[in-house]
Amino acid sequence: MQHELRVLKPEEYFIEDEPYYAPVGDEIAVFEAAYRHGLPILLKGPTGCGKTRFMEHMAWRLKRPLITVSCHDDLTSSDLVGRFLVRGGETVWVDGPLARAVRAGGICYLDEVVEARKDTTVVIHPLADDRRVLPMEKVGELLEAPSEFCLAISYNPGYQSVLKDLKQSTRQRFVALEFDYPGAVLEQTIIEKESGIDAARARQLVKFAHMTRNLKGQGLDEGASTRLLVHAAKLIVGGVDPVVSCRSAIAQALTDDPDMLSAINELSASLF
Amino acid sequence: MQHELRVLKPEEYFIEDEPYYAPVGDEIAVFEAAYRHGLPILLKGPTGCGKTRFMEHMAWRLKRPLITVSCHDDLTSSDLVGRFLVRGGETVWVDGPLARAVRAGGICYLDEVVEARKDTTVVIHPLADDRRVLPMEKVGELLEAPSEFCLAISYNPGYQSVLKDLKQSTRQRFVALEFDYPGAVLEQTIIEKESGIDAARARQLVKFAHMTRNLKGQGLDEGASTRLLVHAAKLIVGGVDPVVSCRSAIAQALTDDPDMLSAINELSASLF
Amino acid sequence: MQHELRVLKPEEYFIEDEPYYAPVGDEIAVFEAAYRHGLPILLKGPTGCGKTRFMEHMAWRLKRPLITVSCHDDLTSSDLVGRFLVRGGETVWVDGPLARAVRAGGICYLDEVVEARKDTTVVIHPLADDRRVLPMEKVGELLEAPSEFCLAISYNPGYQSVLKDLKQSTRQRFVALEFDYPGAVLEQTIIEKESGIDAARARQLVKFAHMTRNLKGQGLDEGASTRLLVHAAKLIVGGVDPVVSCRSAIAQALTDDPDMLSAINELSASLF
Amino acid sequence: MQHELRVLKPEEYFIEDEPYYAPVGDEIAVFEAAYRHGLPILLKGPTGCGKTRFMEHMAWRLKRPLITVSCHDDLTSSDLVGRFLVRGGETVWVDGPLARAVRAGGICYLDEVVEARKDTTVVIHPLADDRRVLPMEKVGELLEAPSEFCLAISYNPGYQSVLKDLKQSTRQRFVALEFDYPGAVLEQTIIEKESGIDAARARQLVKFAHMTRNLKGQGLDEGASTRLLVHAAKLIVGGVDPVVSCRSAIAQALTDDPDMLSAINELSASLF
Amino acid sequence: MQHELRVLKPEEYFIEDEPYYAPVGDEIAVFEAAYRHGLPILLKGPTGCGKTRFMEHMAWRLKRPLITVSCHDDLTSSDLVGRFLVRGGETVWVDGPLARAVRAGGICYLDEVVEARKDTTVVIHPLADDRRVLPMEKVGELLEAPSEFCLAISYNPGYQSVLKDLKQSTRQRFVALEFDYPGAVLEQTIIEKESGIDAARARQLVKFAHMTRNLKGQGLDEGASTRLLVHAAKLIVGGVDPVVSCRSAIAQALTDDPDMLSAINELSASLF
Amino acid sequence: MQHELRVLKPEEYFIEDEPYYAPVGDEIAVFEAAYRHGLPILLKGPTGCGKTRFMEHMAWRLKRPLITVSCHDDLTSSDLVGRFLVRGGETVWVDGPLARAVRAGGICYLDEVVEARKDTTVVIHPLADDRRVLPMEKVGELLEAPSEFCLAISYNPGYQSVLKDLKQSTRQRFVALEFDYPGAVLEQTIIEKESGIDAARARQLVKFAHMTRNLKGQGLDEGASTRLLVHAAKLIVGGVDPVVSCRSAIAQALTDDPDMLSAINELSASLF
Repeated sequence: MQHELRVLKPEEYFIEDEPYYAPVGDEIAVFEAAYRHGLPILLKGPTGCGKTRFMEHMAWRLKRPLITVSCHDDLTSSDLVGRFLVRGGETVWVDGPLARAVRAGGICYLDEVVEARKDTTVVIHPLADDRRVLPMEKVGELLEAPSEFCLAISYNPGYQSVLKDLKQSTRQRFVALEFDYPGAVLEQTIIEKESGIDAARARQLVKFAHMTRNLKGQGLDEGASTRLLVHAAKLIVGGVDPVVSCRSAIAQALTDDPDMLSAINELSASLF
Repeated sequence: MQHELRVLKPEEYFIEDEPYYAPVGDEIAVFEAAYRHGLPILLKGPTGCGKTRFMEHMAWRLKRPLITVSCHDDLTSSDLVGRFLVRGGETVWVDGPLARAVRAGGICYLDEVVEARKDTTVVIHPLADDRRVLPMEKVGELLEAPSEFCLAISYNPGYQSVLKDLKQSTRQRFVALEFDYPGAVLEQTIIEKESGIDAARARQLVKFAHMTRNLKGQGLDEGASTRLLVHAAKLIVGGVDPVVSCRSAIAQALTDDPDMLSAINELSASLF
Repeated sequence: MQHELRVLKPEEYFIEDEPYYAPVGDEIAVFEAAYRHGLPILLKGPTGCGKTRFMEHMAWRLKRPLITVSCHDDLTSSDLVGRFLVRGGETVWVDGPLARAVRAGGICYLDEVVEARKDTTVVIHPLADDRRVLPMEKVGELLEAPSEFCLAISYNPGYQSVLKDLKQSTRQRFVALEFDYPGAVLEQTIIEKESGIDAARARQLVKFAHMTRNLKGQGLDEGASTRLLVHAAKLIVGGVDPVVSCRSAIAQALTDDPDMLSAINELSASLF
Repeated sequence: MQHELRVLKPEEYFIEDEPYYAPVGDEIAVFEAAYRHGLPILLKGPTGCGKTRFMEHMAWRLKRPLITVSCHDDLTSSDLVGRFLVRGGETVWVDGPLARAVRAGGICYLDEVVEARKDTTVVIHPLADDRRVLPMEKVGELLEAPSEFCLAISYNPGYQSVLKDLKQSTRQRFVALEFDYPGAVLEQTIIEKESGIDAARARQLVKFAHMTRNLKGQGLDEGASTRLLVHAAKLIVGGVDPVVSCRSAIAQALTDDPDMLSAINELSASLF
Repeated sequence: MQHELRVLKPEEYFIEDEPYYAPVGDEIAVFEAAYRHGLPILLKGPTGCGKTRFMEHMAWRLKRPLITVSCHDDLTSSDLVGRFLVRGGETVWVDGPLARAVRAGGICYLDEVVEARKDTTVVIHPLADDRRVLPMEKVGELLEAPSEFCLAISYNPGYQSVLKDLKQSTRQRFVALEFDYPGAVLEQTIIEKESGIDAARARQLVKFAHMTRNLKGQGLDEGASTRLLVHAAKLIVGGVDPVVSCRSAIAQALTDDPDMLSAINELSASLF
Repeated sequence: MQHELRVLKPEEYFIEDEPYYAPVGDEIAVFEAAYRHGLPILLKGPTGCGKTRFMEHMAWRLKRPLITVSCHDDLTSSDLVGRFLVRGGETVWVDGPLARAVRAGGICYLDEVVEARKDTTVVIHPLADDRRVLPMEKVGELLEAPSEFCLAISYNPGYQSVLKDLKQSTRQRFVALEFDYPGAVLEQTIIEKESGIDAARARQLVKFAHMTRNLKGQGLDEGASTRLLVHAAKLIVGGVDPVVSCRSAIAQALTDDPDMLSAINELSASLF
């Protein structure tokens, strides 16, 4: 078997085809105004509601490469800025994704930024105010960001704990946009477009999603996100029974609790 | 004495003979539909119930190499993606098992994924959504997964603590399948096939297993898994007394509590 | 597209144009007297109230380069003093920002110093008393600071916890200056100057800021800082609706709490 | 003075003379049956009761080298599997004791395995099930264990805490054997054989041991183990007074509590 | 601008001019007797009361170089003893400050020793008893201290917590001296000498200091130290208003509490 | 000034002159019997009571070098066994103190062993039982100890916490000896011999010591050790007033508590 493996530099990650995105408010206008003034952007909202899609849409719209970093507990500032590596006897500097984005005048998107270690939040401070400068301490240089560069971060306010909160001195540097699940009609359209399912099934899936979202806080941490509905639709299109599809793609993805699982399954059994 | 030591590259680990696996529901169909749509898979279930066997069966069925990683507290993203190593004066990049699986278009199975450090869960995010891309930050590249690549993870929901839970932003990327011990008839057949024991003894062992499973939550964390029954059967076939076999292979493997041990021993003494 | 990327050495960061700064008390006189006697300076005050601007003003006034370090949990003394790096087979010493500032006779400004690890606070002790000496233990040398060198640190007393407090043996080495938001008239002038907004809108924004500052301690950690008012003004100038601008640039930047968010939005809706 | 220092490779550690071991049950038969089926072994029991002696006996019986690893808090998987080391400009791979045991077809005995870090427990998983494979991730290889290889682990269930417990997914891979102090007659014989003491003194020591074992849980964590009795016997043979010998070799080894010490001393004073 | 940057080896730090120091008791005699017998010295007392000045005075008096180490949370024994560094392809050993002091027969002063990591306290043990030997484990050598070498440590007993206490096995190796703020007359003389302020103002500052010291334990952790009085005097001499000087140099250096700050300001306003 | 700096290899540290030591029980006989049988030794007792002196005496008596390691929180097994170091382009193995002692057939004395990290306690296990073997995992070798080698450890049972306790599996490998302060007559003789003070003063110091030891548990963690009495005697011989000497050498070394300090001072004032 022959695999064609494509290997890209992060700053070559341009979105070439327009990603489907229907605005629900002024978010595109606010993003563009902030971008023109060099202000960084903060996206808030639950997982799977379209934040990443919005960033892909804006990257396509602004024709800038999109460099995404999924943040986590062990992400250090070196992971973002870069480090010296020894290769073939030579010591070479390798830019991290943030430095690459600055040099390429791209969009750097730090997903779930509150998960990162504190030094990473601080390395973005000089980029996120008037200075627009990236300190690269290991090489003893300051990198001035070109006007095309854009810094964006996201987090899910529903899950913040006291330990993992954005400091006021960080958050007060950003213009913030709030996201939520799309309205029923729009969500149905998204499901149809992404999975190729027919309208009736898509409408049922949206209905089912609303039922699970009503269970949020009553045993569920989250209701079914738009992404999960697309997963279920793809299984159905692939020939799996709708009730089994909802169980595998939605219910089991949301919870491990046996009682919640059978409650959600009854809901889907009543619908399909 | 002569040892023939076989040394394999992980991506050469093809399952050549069909592993015995009898489906208990739609799990094969759901797996295949998810695989065709490039959706990653999450297996849930107790230890020793057949999750690994199912993965071996699917790897054989799909004719893909199976690269298994047992996750643990100290597993980092570098352990999965790879690292630079100095060898003979030369610095060489050594792919980790996840990068090997991506390049080989294989199945990467992260067993007990919730045990891993948080950066490992995050490194799989871009592989587990539409992007299907592995960021290799140390070499500054994005590796696009071929369509044959499959990501699968597992965990045991019975043991999750608040500290070791899959984040919603992770679990909502997967299609999930639930596993449990096989039914009595199937389990007996498995024991016979794996150990060569006779049907009567195998039936007794299944009966004994059900007795211990009823003790779950009443002093036992888990009842006897199918794997333990096979162990006991092998000892019996090896000439060890059945009661001693059950004590060594099952009771002592399940618990250290003296009262539970003698209770379980009485059960086996009454059976054999 | 052509980016002109400017790369600077930190000690080349001279402020060439006078930064707008209107003193609210004796702070310039105290800073200058302390500077002439070689005493280090401690700035206290909330985020976004003008501490950084004051430092930029003093750096311009004293014609010294300004070397700013944003402190964080993982900042070590090596990050400040320097380290040996292997480059092209050669081991070279790379001065950290503090050593660069000492050598250049510049101003070293450690922002949010209480966030740093304890070894960093201690490395500044010999620089912050009569000795005015930087111990560079890795090279086995003491660097005597020239009279032009100035050490300044800052922190926000509103957020100190017991764990992150400046030790008495550290703070008693500094002359301290307290900062707060500017008065209404001055703040309006700042907003106009920084964003180009008209006086009426700027006055409304200041009024709005005072409303949010009254909510501090009643659900808000902080009221709107001067910086946030400038952000909102820039969005308005960029054509975004004032209420939307205040929501994105101020309310969402301050809090995630839905009730607080709608309370603040009502305030802005009543004003604009 | 002339020292003859013998230096061995771990896999050359063959037990040449039959170690004295009298079975107390089916433990030899169970071990041999498990060994023939390639099942790994778990030994449970208190310190000093003969687990190590049993392993030495089985290693002699099976004519396999015995490679023992005392586990501890900081034992990592690299300590077991091996690591790259730079020697004389060359980078060489050095097998850890587990890899040595696999290559040599020896017996690898991980003593007090619950003390080890979690990554070590996981590295033994693929060796402890059907796969019988050691993943050597640093070299990107899987090492298949020859049939002569045997994995054995031990721990003391009396001291397990919640934090240091064997996970069910680990323990359910092993056939388990329980050990305890030998019976009085056997224990006396052991003491005589190991120290050369006369039968009467040996009998007194066993009697004394039983007295201390009755104090377990009443101020003592453990009673006198067989090993401590041998120590005391050696001191007595070396000319030390029996009461002093028991105090130094047994009482002081068991506890620091002054009241317990004088209680135990009274017991020995009454005996000797 | 021309900076004359002086760079010293730590062991070249001789105090050439007699530092002003007026003894308050037998401290000079005790220090000299301990020094002659090779006993190490422990200084106790609050920050800014003159411990460092006393050490400078004794170093001048004994004509020995003074090597000061400010201890902190991350100070390791390697930081004190030395380490191997790679420089220009060569590996060289670089003595730490403690080894430099031993070789130079100097005075090594470990300031705030309880802040250091435990391994540092232990590395000084063999230097602090009869052996007077520094174990340099990395080079496999023991360095015998010459009779001129002197070890001194300090800490502030007012701030010790249970976690950061000197172990009995450490503190019982030292001869200890207690320090406190100087008497009023002496303190006034010090202020005049160090700042050039006139006697009347100096007397007022001492009076003010006593007022703040009475607030210790009633909202203040510490009263104004002699060092802070000198700071305030320098600002006054530099033309700053006395009340403003006391606020910046003393009140703000002592506390962040708004009520304490205005209380202290009222005190100074009533005085000047 | 000319310093004659003596530099020794640790295994060259022979005690050439008989250290003064008067046995208080059978400790020399028990040590010698254990040594002849190759059993390791555990010393218990408070700081400054003579444990180190006893070890020096036994090293002199047995004519073996004495290699002492002061244990601490960060002491790892590599610190004891050795490590590879790069020197002048060559990688060389440097034996740690424990390996040096094994090779030299010396006495290795691990002082305050409970302070060390857990991996160090485990590395001594194979040396502390029948095997008498040091596993040097980094070089892949087992070093067999010659019969002259002796392992000794110490700790102070008065300070053990649950966290820092010797595991039963460790302590049950040792023959244990208990130490306490010497009797009054012997202690007076020691003070005279070590300081050259006259008998009357020495007797007063012992009397004073007993007074402080009665305060143990009533505000003092420890009473004055023999070592502290020698310190005070040396200060007195050096011309310092006895009351001042007791304050500096004893009271201040024991406690920081002002009330305890004045109580102890009153005791000494009443005596001298």
